[in-house]
Amino acid sequence: MARSAKSNSSKPEMNQAAGPAETGRAVRDLEPLFAPQSIAVIGASRRLGTAGSEILKNLVIGSFGGVIYPVNPKSKSLMGIRCVPAASAIDDKVDLAVVIVPSNSVEAVLSECADHGTKHFIVISAGFKELGGEGVERENRLKALAKERGLSILGPNCLGLINTAPGVSMNAAFGGALPKAGCMGLISQSGALAAALLDYAKGRGIGFSRFVSFGNKADINEIDLLQSLAGDPATKVILMYVEDLSSGQAFVDVAHSITHGRNPKPILAIKTGRTQEGAAAAASHTGSLAGSDEVYDAVFSQAGVIRVESVEDLFDYAEVFAEPTLPRGRRTAIITNAGGPGIMATDACIRYGLKLSKFQEYTVKSLKFQMPPTGSLKNPVDVIGDARHDRYRAALDAVTADEEVDQVMVLVTPQAMTNAKEIAEVVVEMESYCEKPIVACMMGESDVEPGVRVLKEHGVPTYQFPENAMRSMAAKARFAEWIRSPILDYRRFEVNRAAVDELFRQEATAGRNQLVEVRALEAFTHYGFPIVPYKLAKSADEAAAAATEMGFPVVMKISGPKILHKTDVGGVKLNLTDESSVRAAYEAMIQSVRGKLGSEVEIWGVLVQKMLQPGKEIILGMTRDPRFGPLLMFGLGGIYTEALRDVAFRLAPIRENVSSEMIKDIRSYRLLEGVRGEPPSDLTAIADCLMRLSQMVTDSPRIKELDINPLIVYPRGKGCMVADARIILSES
Amino acid sequence: MARSAKSNSSKPEMNQAAGPAETGRAVRDLEPLFAPQSIAVIGASRRLGTAGSEILKNLVIGSFGGVIYPVNPKSKSLMGIRCVPAASAIDDKVDLAVVIVPSNSVEAVLSECADHGTKHFIVISAGFKELGGEGVERENRLKALAKERGLSILGPNCLGLINTAPGVSMNAAFGGALPKAGCMGLISQSGALAAALLDYAKGRGIGFSRFVSFGNKADINEIDLLQSLAGDPATKVILMYVEDLSSGQAFVDVAHSITHGRNPKPILAIKTGRTQEGAAAAASHTGSLAGSDEVYDAVFSQAGVIRVESVEDLFDYAEVFAEPTLPRGRRTAIITNAGGPGIMATDACIRYGLKLSKFQEYTVKSLKFQMPPTGSLKNPVDVIGDARHDRYRAALDAVTADEEVDQVMVLVTPQAMTNAKEIAEVVVEMESYCEKPIVACMMGESDVEPGVRVLKEHGVPTYQFPENAMRSMAAKARFAEWIRSPILDYRRFEVNRAAVDELFRQEATAGRNQLVEVRALEAFTHYGFPIVPYKLAKSADEAAAAATEMGFPVVMKISGPKILHKTDVGGVKLNLTDESSVRAAYEAMIQSVRGKLGSEVEIWGVLVQKMLQPGKEIILGMTRDPRFGPLLMFGLGGIYTEALRDVAFRLAPIRENVSSEMIKDIRSYRLLEGVRGEPPSDLTAIADCLMRLSQMVTDSPRIKELDINPLIVYPRGKGCMVADARIILSES
Repeated sequence: MARSAKSNSSKPEMNQAAGPAETGRAVRDLEPLFAPQSIAVIGASRRLGTAGSEILKNLVIGSFGGVIYPVNPKSKSLMGIRCVPAASAIDDKVDLAVVIVPSNSVEAVLSECADHGTKHFIVISAGFKELGGEGVERENRLKALAKERGLSILGPNCLGLINTAPGVSMNAAFGGALPKAGCMGLISQSGALAAALLDYAKGRGIGFSRFVSFGNKADINEIDLLQSLAGDPATKVILMYVEDLSSGQAFVDVAHSITHGRNPKPILAIKTGRTQEGAAAAASHTGSLAGSDEVYDAVFSQAGVIRVESVEDLFDYAEVFAEPTLPRGRRTAIITNAGGPGIMATDACIRYGLKLSKFQEYTVKSLKFQMPPTGSLKNPVDVIGDARHDRYRAALDAVTADEEVDQVMVLVTPQAMTNAKEIAEVVVEMESYCEKPIVACMMGESDVEPGVRVLKEHGVPTYQFPENAMRSMAAKARFAEWIRSPILDYRRFEVNRAAVDELFRQEATAGRNQLVEVRALEAFTHYGFPIVPYKLAKSADEAAAAATEMGFPVVMKISGPKILHKTDVGGVKLNLTDESSVRAAYEAMIQSVRGKLGSEVEIWGVLVQKMLQPGKEIILGMTRDPRFGPLLMFGLGGIYTEALRDVAFRLAPIRENVSSEMIKDIRSYRLLEGVRGEPPSDLTAIADCLMRLSQMVTDSPRIKELDINPLIVYPRGKGCMVADARIILSES
Repeated sequence: MARSAKSNSSKPEMNQAAGPAETGRAVRDLEPLFAPQSIAVIGASRRLGTAGSEILKNLVIGSFGGVIYPVNPKSKSLMGIRCVPAASAIDDKVDLAVVIVPSNSVEAVLSECADHGTKHFIVISAGFKELGGEGVERENRLKALAKERGLSILGPNCLGLINTAPGVSMNAAFGGALPKAGCMGLISQSGALAAALLDYAKGRGIGFSRFVSFGNKADINEIDLLQSLAGDPATKVILMYVEDLSSGQAFVDVAHSITHGRNPKPILAIKTGRTQEGAAAAASHTGSLAGSDEVYDAVFSQAGVIRVESVEDLFDYAEVFAEPTLPRGRRTAIITNAGGPGIMATDACIRYGLKLSKFQEYTVKSLKFQMPPTGSLKNPVDVIGDARHDRYRAALDAVTADEEVDQVMVLVTPQAMTNAKEIAEVVVEMESYCEKPIVACMMGESDVEPGVRVLKEHGVPTYQFPENAMRSMAAKARFAEWIRSPILDYRRFEVNRAAVDELFRQEATAGRNQLVEVRALEAFTHYGFPIVPYKLAKSADEAAAAATEMGFPVVMKISGPKILHKTDVGGVKLNLTDESSVRAAYEAMIQSVRGKLGSEVEIWGVLVQKMLQPGKEIILGMTRDPRFGPLLMFGLGGIYTEALRDVAFRLAPIRENVSSEMIKDIRSYRLLEGVRGEPPSDLTAIADCLMRLSQMVTDSPRIKELDINPLIVYPRGKGCMVADARIILSES
């Protein structure tokens, strides 16, 4: 891509400095894997169509920059290159061994290579975890070997890897020819998809820096690879296909540091198994349990990773991200030579969350001076069907200079006077010095092809349909906002953690995994949550005194470790307005509960709570995902959470900014902003509770599950109150 | 397309009989327009790049089957064809004149041609309504001329039309070369988009029967063209691009008869201007006011038209609809040679509303016998990366025979042993005699290209990405359901229409366009709506007697023609539980209202209503769209309609089936089904009210706007009740 003129400018760009992103995690040095001086191809073969033949051929035809040693005990040479019978026979230091032998020989081959100093491996061979049973054990032995001898292993059951860097030029994969060099780094858990992606990319003229199929990830996983791509100066955009993630919090940390660090790179991810049926198919395919898809949405959102839903979107987005100019905002201008497609572009602009620029007066004046009288001077600018490149240039000049424009889409339909190539040349020229992103949409196939070619050659993002162009521009605008957004820290509150630990210890000792309400409230009190005034009364007198102290009306609930369905046993009374009714309720309740559950039922007393003013009901919750850890949940109470499933999730711990994002994430957020003249709810108070919850579940791994239901929230400035809560501890 | 083997089978197909669909509307005979024996090209030109040169060239190069008469006073010949100086000089009957002269000469040219017997015209010339002002008048004169002299005019401001029928072979358009013949009929309001669509179609190998750019539709509109395409045996699928519709109810009638008649044809429509900004762009482009987008959703839904959001979807859907086999249900099987893409396909299957088939036991057994041990025998069937065509055949054989499978997607990724062409040949063969739709997804570009070519040649729907394939299959499955769905009639209730007419007449005479509640309730009573018992009491005694008769508690509201904000003047009392409080309330209310509004305020009395048991609150409404007529609205009360805009619209009159569809259309429909142990609501009672409302607003064009808010609905079998209502009459 001829971007020299542009990269000298002072405009906002991604990737301004090259170099590894800062992460809190030790980075594995995988450079010998990506850029070895010498490769042994163990299991290289003459048999066409086999991996052993294809990989050797791909390395040779791709003009690998180092030395290739084919290892095959039965052949003297392969592709004219002298073979050795075994890795041990190579009289050179071997940086990388590509292993394509039957699965039951892999372990022995790795040991032998390790004995001769090789530390890096690509294991192409299948027959491991994906088979289940014996295969799992075989893979575990590989893992152990890697650990014991300090090896790096890519795979097994993978396609291999490609590095197009000049001087390296390594196609150590059997996914077709070496792709064109470019700025995309791709990692894929599926080999077949990786091969298809290479083929699609060729068709779209997209180039790669590095390309990795990582298969069963016995050793090297997606997190290692992300860190490695982050440090590769040739990689500007990271594409990934995953069916599961190895770890949630580590992924969030690493990906966050890549997408929002000193040298941000966008990560576009496809994660399949979104539906239950898809997850079942994934489980039967890879043998890995992926966890619920909601966790993945949370993980990607927290990490700044752009989740895409299809291969088509992946490449569409890649196209616009390959060009480093970031838009300063969402205000978009459209220049078109046809009305209908201009309307389509406008619809798409709004649908995908962009804004249509409202031009400044001078822009309209300038357009009026240069456009034909039938043209449209408003956005979308219609340069009319007979427009040639000069009219497109005038429109682009005027529009890009407008302060109300953050990015521009140039739309060209093939009409009688249209010369797509000349228009494309104008777009390329303007784009090379414009500080705002310019994207082209050339509608049609053959008629606009000469223009498309020019645009692609010069790295101008180019689309066939206005919808795809706008969707991609919107993704980039959101990424630009993500980069600019302040990332706040994890807030730590002063809490009484020791008291909660002790409380949980006592409950566990007593064999009570499900905490009684009063105990749960106590725990939340130690973490500074606003709790409705309550008191556990042991007698009618205590209840009456407590009620008088907190003020009427009050609610009373029976409290005992085994009493679950309180209402069914007459254990709940609402709206008690004076002392005498409190006393009466106390006695009646004890009697009723003993009557229903037997006189020996353990009763701690009666919980007296101040009856709350009505407010909006919120639910906060946490479940602990076996792989990803504590997952926080937020939703509106009542039908919203239970029936409409309108909830937001995030992995704990959450940063301060994430707590407010989470609240805005639900579809019914508008109800918290205040509708029909209601005041807005106290969102700060909810965010505060979410962060306290985050701290609490991070501090106490013992909490298996909890919810606050409801949290009553009042208008802005009036706070919120925990009205009821439940904590379940894990059985230890 | 070689579909001969298939079309002899007895499987369910669209378009089994050729012939015009039945419509309730007179069909204009446009055949001379589409298949003329002779064409005059008035304004034919030598100047390259002009419409006058392009159209003549396209007619000649396209080998038009009739005679072409170029009309140009300055040239003796054009493209070697002898010119005449004027249409009047042609010594032959001219069926069709294509007019490409300056806009101010068009009227004269048409008159002259009409004098010489020509009845059909394509007016390419621009400079009419789209200019506004003088252009509008010019267009109105064309309209008048057409009416007066019985002419058919396509355009003005259009690209022309194409008919690929053998023997006709007419390319009377300037949108590029004659496309390949095929089963798609396309009509487009945008000329530039039409040209781009032709170019896209060429790239995807899609063929056309007829292709029409209809421009400003001064005379011939989209409804005429739909009727004409319905009667064309070569057209199997209708594609349309519109920016506005000329009429709502006529469109619904005609399109419904095409999509659900004796000989159903699918109609795929792009309607732009979905967003406010897009609609504004459309208005400034065509000068037409499109009406709110909600009306279009209602119109398309009632007409069985499949609304698509982009050109890409249009062609994706066209691909699958070109193949006539309809699936019997939504159960879908997937055959893949790679796990990852299989999961993507599964996710897409569910996301777009299809179901994943659960195979019968014999299918699994049969697969087990023929698949490799590492393959997956469940759906998606994984034939494993090294699968060749024989293994695909075995899997297809087993899966298509399964009764739990309605349609099959065959997914091929390019791997080392994959021969896409051989696999494609197997798919073509199986598809030719299989009674279930089979769709192929070939992932990649160049590697699978030989396979794609074979599939396209034989008319097997073929996609690049699993998501596009599944989305298209889902659209076809929904269309199959539409075709099979019983279309119920418009139900007519016994009502007292005369009484309502009289009531409205009286109100109008009294100058009261906004009816007082009691009058509105009266009108609804005449139409048989269930109304909360009410009585207009003129004295405290009458009020007390009425309350006793209907039963306590009751509500009381002041009633008078000018009293709008009843609560503000002390004109509302709730929950009155005995006679004495009713009497007291009556006197207090009259006094308070007179106190606030003056003693001469007109008071009709006090409306006494039985206080209703609480139930779910529903809103029914109607607004009269200036172009489309009465638009019914349905939604849940409270925040759902006002804040969440969760409402459904349909044009009245509605058929019985539409009333229940409308109810299911809202996002919060689940709340009516009963959540959290609640009983389901009485949907039949709501549907009954919707149909009565439909009849009422169709009977009385005088009603400008009305709403029933709330309609209280009770559990199934317990009915519903109108609690409050509002009617506004149009000022006549």
